Formats: sequence, structure tokens, C-alpha cells
Amino acid sequence: MQHRNATAAVIGAGDYIGSAIAKKFAAEGFTIFAGRRNGDKLAPLVAEVEAAGGRIVARSLDARKEEDITAFLQAADQHAPLEVCIFNIGANVNFPLLDTTERVFRKVWEMACYSGFLAGREAARLMLPHGGGCIFFTGATASLRGGVGYAAFAAAKAGLRAMAQAAARELGPRNIHVAHLVIDSGVDTAWVRERIKDREGEAALQNLDPGRLMRPEAVAETYWQLYSQPRDAWTFEQEIRPFGEKW
Amino acid sequence: MQHRNATAAVIGAGDYIGSAIAKKFAAEGFTIFAGRRNGDKLAPLVAEVEAAGGRIVARSLDARKEEDITAFLQAADQHAPLEVCIFNIGANVNFPLLDTTERVFRKVWEMACYSGFLAGREAARLMLPHGGGCIFFTGATASLRGGVGYAAFAAAKAGLRAMAQAAARELGPRNIHVAHLVIDSGVDTAWVRERIKDREGEAALQNLDPGRLMRPEAVAETYWQLYSQPRDAWTFEQEIRPFGEKW
Amino acid sequence: MQHRNATAAVIGAGDYIGSAIAKKFAAEGFTIFAGRRNGDKLAPLVAEVEAAGGRIVARSLDARKEEDITAFLQAADQHAPLEVCIFNIGANVNFPLLDTTERVFRKVWEMACYSGFLAGREAARLMLPHGGGCIFFTGATASLRGGVGYAAFAAAKAGLRAMAQAAARELGPRNIHVAHLVIDSGVDTAWVRERIKDREGEAALQNLDPGRLMRPEAVAETYWQLYSQPRDAWTFEQEIRPFGEKW
Amino acid sequence: MQHRNATAAVIGAGDYIGSAIAKKFAAEGFTIFAGRRNGDKLAPLVAEVEAAGGRIVARSLDARKEEDITAFLQAADQHAPLEVCIFNIGANVNFPLLDTTERVFRKVWEMACYSGFLAGREAARLMLPHGGGCIFFTGATASLRGGVGYAAFAAAKAGLRAMAQAAARELGPRNIHVAHLVIDSGVDTAWVRERIKDREGEAALQNLDPGRLMRPEAVAETYWQLYSQPRDAWTFEQEIRPFGEKW
Repeated sequence: MQHRNATAAVIGAGDYIGSAIAKKFAAEGFTIFAGRRNGDKLAPLVAEVEAAGGRIVARSLDARKEEDITAFLQAADQHAPLEVCIFNIGANVNFPLLDTTERVFRKVWEMACYSGFLAGREAARLMLPHGGGCIFFTGATASLRGGVGYAAFAAAKAGLRAMAQAAARELGPRNIHVAHLVIDSGVDTAWVRERIKDREGEAALQNLDPGRLMRPEAVAETYWQLYSQPRDAWTFEQEIRPFGEKW
Repeated sequence: MQHRNATAAVIGAGDYIGSAIAKKFAAEGFTIFAGRRNGDKLAPLVAEVEAAGGRIVARSLDARKEEDITAFLQAADQHAPLEVCIFNIGANVNFPLLDTTERVFRKVWEMACYSGFLAGREAARLMLPHGGGCIFFTGATASLRGGVGYAAFAAAKAGLRAMAQAAARELGPRNIHVAHLVIDSGVDTAWVRERIKDREGEAALQNLDPGRLMRPEAVAETYWQLYSQPRDAWTFEQEIRPFGEKW
Repeated sequence: MQHRNATAAVIGAGDYIGSAIAKKFAAEGFTIFAGRRNGDKLAPLVAEVEAAGGRIVARSLDARKEEDITAFLQAADQHAPLEVCIFNIGANVNFPLLDTTERVFRKVWEMACYSGFLAGREAARLMLPHGGGCIFFTGATASLRGGVGYAAFAAAKAGLRAMAQAAARELGPRNIHVAHLVIDSGVDTAWVRERIKDREGEAALQNLDPGRLMRPEAVAETYWQLYSQPRDAWTFEQEIRPFGEKW
Repeated sequence: MQHRNATAAVIGAGDYIGSAIAKKFAAEGFTIFAGRRNGDKLAPLVAEVEAAGGRIVARSLDARKEEDITAFLQAADQHAPLEVCIFNIGANVNFPLLDTTERVFRKVWEMACYSGFLAGREAARLMLPHGGGCIFFTGATASLRGGVGYAAFAAAKAGLRAMAQAAARELGPRNIHVAHLVIDSGVDTAWVRERIKDREGEAALQNLDPGRLMRPEAVAETYWQLYSQPRDAWTFEQEIRPFGEKW
């Protein structure tokens, strides 16, 4: 593996998508700064990346705290120039509007929108002196559509998307590529498989249509493509779904 | 004037759009419950509505406080059944992303999105026992587009819109009409005229293209049309602009 | 009824939506010029409008022929100034892409898009000397979305919408209001009821959810609202659906 | 170069984007079937591809003729299995609505929409027996927006997009990846440079902002990325623009 003198920060380095992104960028030679609420849970990711010859720093991180985000990204940038920042925190909850407490509405926004703003702004501040970089945000169907039961989640994700759009327009001419990836489908995780079993039964899970779920690795591959775009052909928003998806 | 046994709440009853809405619905016989941060500023509106034979109750209201919103709407509903709730709080600020403080990002969201959620949810709770009602939200260009300088404002307005969309899908079948009005243009207010003078000069203001600004009364008329829609032909989102607008 | 010195042309004056529009505008005092492929079928509409004291001229019209459209609209304008032109020709077909013949693809486009272009352009030419007017186009879900089986229909309807959008931007500043009405639901017609019976059975038809279908009169009412908009608050696109619709 | 037993058809193999796509896919080992109105103009492309060790067949092609499209794609598929079909015919014209002749409206549609339908349908018919493939369409800003002067062009491009969307939904589950690439910016061609010189002067051209135009190679690279997507993370629509673009 050829190491690069550059870091890629992954904020919201969960067990599936976040970890897959970290592994992909590590395999491409970036030093990964991986953050999640409970940094102890990053141990398996660290082990896997290091076993493959990659470099990674794991941190506990409350992304809703400005000082945490700032410290995390500054540490990454001091390690080696921050070139990539991927914000991957979700907060997928489903409540009828009438059952949505003000606490839920606020917490979901803090996790999925507000902390994305903090991360994007801080990453941009660090990248500008280096002459550019990439700031990517993970979106969902709810980024584009307020569906039944998604008042809180869609409000947060649509807000994140709008912030990212403003950021892309402001930062593009300064050579920072801001993109928003809309994952318009289920991703193959233990949680999603559990839900399928609950709703459709064990048999449905055994005979899962190969075109139904996305592998976390495929999401990571999409981020790598966005990173690889020449700067005269940047995409702001990309929607992905598996080949069998109804949409 | 024929009085109705129904109230229309206007949250964010500012001097222009909010007041125009209040006057229109008062003229159609609703008792208006008008709320704004500083209720003292509602005195001219109250005088005008009452002089025209209308009925209006003015209240100071911090729409970001759940207990304030709840008390305001419950008082309206106790006065006469709450049939209409129009959420009209804006928070139009423009800052480059890098100059957007976490405080600004949060406050704009609290005013333009979070308080809209509180208002919508509480209005729905009160309307359902009456068998239906109308909940309308005022949007802006930024509801649909994150433009340069609008990271905070667009994030809040897009969030409000997404929440409204979820609400419309959940509440429509229960006979509550939720709609989102996108005002895609300048409205003729003292503040907008001041900005035109600053940017384009006094002469530009004197020779203002008649197709450039919307009268607050025209916005109010649009809300009345939404209210008047038969329930088998409801609109969720309506964009309005003056005839001369470039878009 | 107060008669106006103005005509409203309805191109595609079918038994349901087109007729309802004609009746509404006739009731408001317009002289109606109603055109459809086989003008003989307009006899019941003519009888109904005249019985109500309205004025109407019925014509056979092949809207895909430039000379037919031109002659029809010129005749209307010579009768009394053409103030309103509503293009209401559909061509709802559903074929898998692989079974869509070049003939179907072309015919659907000629009916739903090309003839709309001809109507809009000719109406604008006649309205400009009068200082303004209204040109409205009827759209459908397929105007916004290419769904399974709708390659031909969606291509035509999306084309009509795009043409209307360009027209709105060009003609708005010249005081012609161009609008596009998206009917995002089934309309209560004999044909739709037949389909429901076929697919869901007689019982489903007997117990039809009141929030499921739109009355043609409700569509006509929406067009009347668009006509009534003050010119400082024009809508280009309006989507309507019944209160019980899933969307 | 490793040759593949597969052909990639490029319909509309013009001097810039089309040629760049052909060169990219040839370099990746595909045999190219390149078609344009006047096949003689393909000589330089053929020379370039062959000099680089690639394989290419050039053909004159009137893409508006069903028999031409069918023969062209069948020949490609007989040469080696048709795996990729890229439809790249534009027809960018700008006329005010009132100056748009019925002939222009029809011709633009035939070139930009109708022939795309023919190409997509025929490619799908040939690919299905092979178990899958990729069908990509080149779009433009006008695919999404009917701007001033674009009644004809936008109607055609929006129609192409809607057809492609229906195709994507129908063919995705059958393992054919249909995508629509929106080129939302000027591409660096002789014609675009000429327009910049005409409008902004020679100096503007000399000092061209590096973030303003896209290289045809960058567009081709985007198509290659779409081709390379794993099938559990397919994109239907991708918008690209250079980093300096205002949007």
C-alpha cells in the first residue's frame, strides 16, 4: 500500500457504511480519522484496517459539540493535511407527527443536521489553506421526501442537504468539492435484516432478492468515485439504489 | 360581516404578510388569534381589524417555547374551534458558511423550523376532534434551494418544508389540509424597498418595475384560495411570484 | 349571468374535465370555444351550457394540425378577445418500453405535447395585442415522473411541462399567465370507475373511499383559482390531489 | 490493451463528447460502434482509436429512422455482444416561443427524444438475452428546466429524460443499468469558445476561468464511472459541472 500524506475524516464511523468508507479510503493510502459516539466500538475497524496495512486513528466524538468536532478535525489535520471529510451520522427514527416529542425532533436535528453543519464548516476552514479538499454528506430518501412517520428525520435530513447545497455553491469555486450522496434503499446491515425478518418472516430473509439491499462496500465505492471525479466534472448530488429497487 | 364560530391562528403576525393574512381571514369572518414575539406591536393590526368589524385577539408569543405555542393555540381553540393555523415566522439571514456561528445556525432553525413543527403538531391535535382544519406554512426560495450565503436559512426552511410534507401525508386522510406556500420573490415591504435603494439606488426604487414585488395582500389572497380548495383537490405546495419575476 | 366580452378556448373538451372547465368559465360569463376531435360529441355540453344561460361554440378540431389550431383560436378571438386558453388533451397509454411501437410513441407526443405547443404559441400570438391573458395546461403524475409503463406518456407530458415552463418565463413579463396543473390522482370518470371495478371488484366501487377520486368540477375550480390570481402572485405549477390520496 | 468480447455503441459520436466517450471505452477494451449523421466525419476518431490499439467501426446513421437504429445496433451486437449503448445526440437550439416553427419543434424532438427512445428500446431488446447491459443518455440543463428560449429544446430533453426514467424503472430489475447524465455547464468545444469570444470578447477567452468549462474527457470519465458502478449501487441521474460553475 502506498501511503499518502493526507487524512480522511469519517464522522459517524458506524459498523457498516462508515466502516466500509474508512476501509476503502485507508486502502487507498489515506490515514483515517474515525469518530463515533463511543470510540471503543471502533476497535474491530482499527484492527481490520491495520491488518491490511492501513493507518487509522479512532476517537470518541460527540459530533453535536462544536468543541469536539473542532478538536477532532484539527487533530486529523495536524496529523497530515485533511483532504477528505465524510459526514455519515444518521438518526433514522419513525414516529407519527402527533407522537413526535419536541425532544426527539431536536435530538434528531442535532445529530443529523446541526453536527453536519459543524463538521462541514470546520473541515472547510482547515482545507482552504491547503488549496482544496472534499466534503461529503450521507443522505437518505428522507433527504428528498417527507414521508409518513418521518417529520423529524426528514426535517433533519432535508436541512442537512440544503446546508450542503449552499456549501457546495460557496466552496466549489474555492476548489472544495462538496457532495451529497442519497442512499435510496436499504443497506445490508444486521438491523435491516432483522426488520425484514420481523415484517416478512424468516423465509423472506432466506430468499432475499439480490437486487434489494446495498452492500456497505458499494456505498464506499460510490464515495471513492466522487473523490476521483476530475474537478471540471463534479457532481453535487448522487442517488444510488440497488438494481432491483422499486422507486 | 358574517362572523364564523371558528378561529384562525396566525403565528408570526408581522407587519406585512402576517398582518395581511390576519386581515383577510378576519374579513371572511374568522376570529383571529395573532401572535408575535412582541405582542405590543400588534396594536395597529388590532385597530385595523376591529375598525373593519372583525374580531381579533393579540398575544405575545415565543414560538420556540412548546408551552407558549400550546397555550396560544389552546386559548384560540377555547375561544372558538381552531379551524386554520398559519405559521409565518421567517428568519431570513445571509452569512457565508464560514461566518455562520453555531448560535446563528441554531437560532434560525429554532425560529423557522422547530417552532413550525410545534405549531403544526399542536394545531393538528386541536383540530382532529373537530374533524378537520387547515395548517399552512410560509416558505421561501430557500425552502427549495440552498443558495450562496443561505446555509443556515435554507437548512431551516428546507427542514420546515420536509416536516410539512410528512404532516400533509399523515393528516390529509384525516381531513386536515396541510400546505406549504413558497414565496419565490421579494414582497413589498419597507425592508425590501430599503435594500433595493441600497443596492440599486433611489432611482431604481422610483421606477420600480410593477412586476417585481408582491403585495402582502396577494400572498394573503393565495392563502385564502388554499383555504377555499375543495377537499378532493388539495394542493400541498404552491409557488407564487409576480408576473415580471425572472426564475 | 353577466356576460363578458371575452372568450375562453378549451382544447380537448372531453366529457369530464374539459366539460367541467367549459361550464365553469361559461358560468363566469366567458364565451366558450370548445374543441375536440369529434365535435358532434360536444352536443350535450352545448345544451347544458346554454340551458344555464351561457354561451358556447363547439368545433371539431384535430389539435395536431397547425392550421386547425390556428383557425380555431383565431375564430375564438374574432368572436371576442381571447383571454383564456386551456389545453386539456391527454393521451394516457401504458405500455412496457419494449412493446412501445414507434407509432405509439409519436402519436402520444403529437397529441399531448406537440399540439400543446401549437396551442400555446398561437394563443400567445393572439393575446399579446390585447395586453395579456391566461394559458393553462393540464398535466398528470407522468409530467413529473417516468413510471413503469409510461415511457411514451411521460415523455410527452414531461415535454409539455418543459415547453410550458419556457413559455411561462417568456410570457410572464408580457402579462400572460402560463400555468401547468398537475392532476396527481384519479378523476371520477366512467373510465376510472370501470378500471377500479376491473381491478378491485364491484364491492370496492360501492365502498369507494370519499378521499380517493377528484370530481371534474374540483379541477375546474382550481383553474378558476389560477385565473383569479392577482398578477403579482402567479403560480406556474400546481399539484392537486384528493385528501385521501397516498403520495 | 486487453480487448473485450463486447461492443459499446455511441450514437451521436460528435467531435467532442461523443468522440471522448468512444476513446475512453475503446481504451478499456470495448469494440466501439460509432454512428453519426455523416459517417465520413468519423475518420479522425477511427484513426485515433486505431492508433491507440483500439477497435472501432464507424457508420453513417440517421438516428431518427427506426430501421437505421435497428440495423446499427444489430450489427454492433453481431460483431460482439452489445454491452453498452450511449445516446449522445443533442439538438441545442434557442428560439423564443413565438418564433419557434412547428418544423423546428418537431425536428428537435425527433433528434433529441424520439431517436433516444428508438435507441434505448432496441439496445434493451439486444441486451436482455445477454443478461444485462448499460444504456446511458446525455442530458443538459434543459432536461430539468424550461428556460427562456428553450421551448423546443427543453421539451425534447425533458421528454428524453422521462423516457429514460421509465426505462430505468422497467429494466433495472432485469439487470440493465439505465442512466441519464446531466451536463449542467458549457463543454470545452470550438463552438462554445466561439460563443464566448462573440459575447465576451477575445480577452475573456484568453483569460478563461479554469473552473468554467468541462473537458469532453471529463464527461467520458463520468460515463466510465457509471459503467463501473456495482449493480447494488446504481445511479439513475447524475449532474456534473465544473468546480467554478455558478448554479
